[in-house]
Amino acid sequence: MKVSRVGEFKLIEKIRRKVERRGPTSGMEGIIAGIGDDAAVVAPPHEKLLVVTTDTMVEGVHFDTEYAGFEKIGYKAMVSCISDIIAMGGNPSYGLVSLGLPRNRLSEDVEDLYEGMLKAGRKFGVRIVGGDTVSSPKSCVISLTLLGEVGENRVIYRSGAKVGDRILVTGNFGDSAAGLAILKGRWRIRNQSSYVKRCKIKVTMKHLLPEPRVKEAEIISRNRLATAMIDSSDGLDLSVGFICQASRVGARIWLDKVPISPSLKYLASPSGEEGAMRILTYALYGGEDYELVFTVPREKADRVLRHIPHTAMVGEIVPARWGVVYLDKRNREIKIKGRGYEHFKTSPDFWSPPEREG
Amino acid sequence: MKVSRVGEFKLIEKIRRKVERRGPTSGMEGIIAGIGDDAAVVAPPHEKLLVVTTDTMVEGVHFDTEYAGFEKIGYKAMVSCISDIIAMGGNPSYGLVSLGLPRNRLSEDVEDLYEGMLKAGRKFGVRIVGGDTVSSPKSCVISLTLLGEVGENRVIYRSGAKVGDRILVTGNFGDSAAGLAILKGRWRIRNQSSYVKRCKIKVTMKHLLPEPRVKEAEIISRNRLATAMIDSSDGLDLSVGFICQASRVGARIWLDKVPISPSLKYLASPSGEEGAMRILTYALYGGEDYELVFTVPREKADRVLRHIPHTAMVGEIVPARWGVVYLDKRNREIKIKGRGYEHFKTSPDFWSPPEREG
Repeated sequence: MKVSRVGEFKLIEKIRRKVERRGPTSGMEGIIAGIGDDAAVVAPPHEKLLVVTTDTMVEGVHFDTEYAGFEKIGYKAMVSCISDIIAMGGNPSYGLVSLGLPRNRLSEDVEDLYEGMLKAGRKFGVRIVGGDTVSSPKSCVISLTLLGEVGENRVIYRSGAKVGDRILVTGNFGDSAAGLAILKGRWRIRNQSSYVKRCKIKVTMKHLLPEPRVKEAEIISRNRLATAMIDSSDGLDLSVGFICQASRVGARIWLDKVPISPSLKYLASPSGEEGAMRILTYALYGGEDYELVFTVPREKADRVLRHIPHTAMVGEIVPARWGVVYLDKRNREIKIKGRGYEHFKTSPDFWSPPEREG
Repeated sequence: MKVSRVGEFKLIEKIRRKVERRGPTSGMEGIIAGIGDDAAVVAPPHEKLLVVTTDTMVEGVHFDTEYAGFEKIGYKAMVSCISDIIAMGGNPSYGLVSLGLPRNRLSEDVEDLYEGMLKAGRKFGVRIVGGDTVSSPKSCVISLTLLGEVGENRVIYRSGAKVGDRILVTGNFGDSAAGLAILKGRWRIRNQSSYVKRCKIKVTMKHLLPEPRVKEAEIISRNRLATAMIDSSDGLDLSVGFICQASRVGARIWLDKVPISPSLKYLASPSGEEGAMRILTYALYGGEDYELVFTVPREKADRVLRHIPHTAMVGEIVPARWGVVYLDKRNREIKIKGRGYEHFKTSPDFWSPPEREG
């Protein structure tokens, strides 16, 4: 049924019931008043700091209902915010959802969207406590605000990287951008073998249903291993760039150490040099991988790599005047032009291969 | 300069500097990390509860840049959220701003929008600590999340109204809707006298630059005067309806006691009966007045009316089975069909005069 037939208040009532039925069952004691009043009332973290973040996803910019159902969109919206909270060393706890909906949208779509958010919420301990639902002329707009908590001496900023620190990452880079390119038909792969199909599914699922690195972030934060941390939602290049800017340092990135999934490698392998450039572009500038990029003191790097699964060392922090440079296998500097996805400035179709100077 | 030429990150940097320069100067010690990291880190309220609310304003639905500059839009967005926090008995403290902007918007517009939010922030003690800025295909979308604090025994829900309680309100009702109708050309007033012009300005300013009832809410909360409270952003009828629904009670509203501004009365007076119906429609169903609607035990009502400026008594709480009824001067029941602005279901042009049965 269209939301225009259901009406705002019935829709909110439906959402409220769904949230109560499908939210996490633990931690409810912190919610004094959830959906249904002017504002939500919750217990603040005890002897901890409050971490807050907000992310907006716009139809046609961040998601497209042609290739992702609303449940996936909701799940990903939640993951994107959770990733920001854990990248600060925090634990997410409460969420507020603002929805802008065109009048002809189905109330079932809204329920699916909430189902996705609640699924991620149950998995990662987030309780939805409030929100706002309004009409929007054309596109669906989802604004999600998450509150979390962090121990005072466990906060990890972007600004703590020191010269000599190693740059580590979790997981693989580039899959999400590759998946998006495949979904949008910008990357056409001729080979139709079942293995290629499996690889395509793997990278597109990384785009549609990313997972936040909650466990890894928790170990890093609890043991105070990182001097700086950021989530890789804007691509490796910008993530390292933001750390360098905030910490007033430079970085060397060893390109051959940037972890690439076997699926992405396999999909790109038939195209040789062009395929390698494609991988690089997706990994450095693609974004939405929701991996962690963090720096650790040199002497701790080995221990971190051994004890935290899915981590790899991709570079080191150098003095600011050296800038951010990329090195190939033989330690030769590679100049790459291009940049990560920046709203307003670049269109989502910017995937031209970066220039390279040997 | 268009935001597409400035780019996301330069825009965020501009915003960050503006917020630091123009935010409130007191209370900064609570902000551990503001704009510029994955998430903001703030000190939680000490021995108090956390109040959180979010409001989304969409261009073409909630505002129109044809008759309101971005500074006014920003100011009103902030007021709308502050009103939700104070209606719970809380004090607003931190804000997060999510902006969806079409690429052709000017970065000056964004600065104006922030100027408006910061102006309201300085006035009412809200510090902007974070946000998100993304592109949006067509309309400008503003999502604002506010955090506030409230003493554990000072929270005022919608659900505490008891039979016999008096229903009180602050300020006047209907001006905002009247102002919108005038701005949109739906209410054409022929008389062009300078006094009529002044009246028109007064009601349109109530629509464009409403003020939250911070002082009044503070007195009510501090002295625990109200059994239930709500802000009148959806009109008096829905506000009373929400209190009745949550408290499982009914209400009688004395229509001649609903406070109407002299300006609105003057503007409507030449149209006689139709004018009176217009006033009633705006007051009951208009919304966006951002006044407080609250219930107090009968024996406290006089004291409240005497000590809190701008308050009026408009009705009383009755058993649920009596429903919500409107009474005229001679205590005769008046049946009014119609309802407040509901997203999706009603168009903003629903102002048909309500039916009346003597």
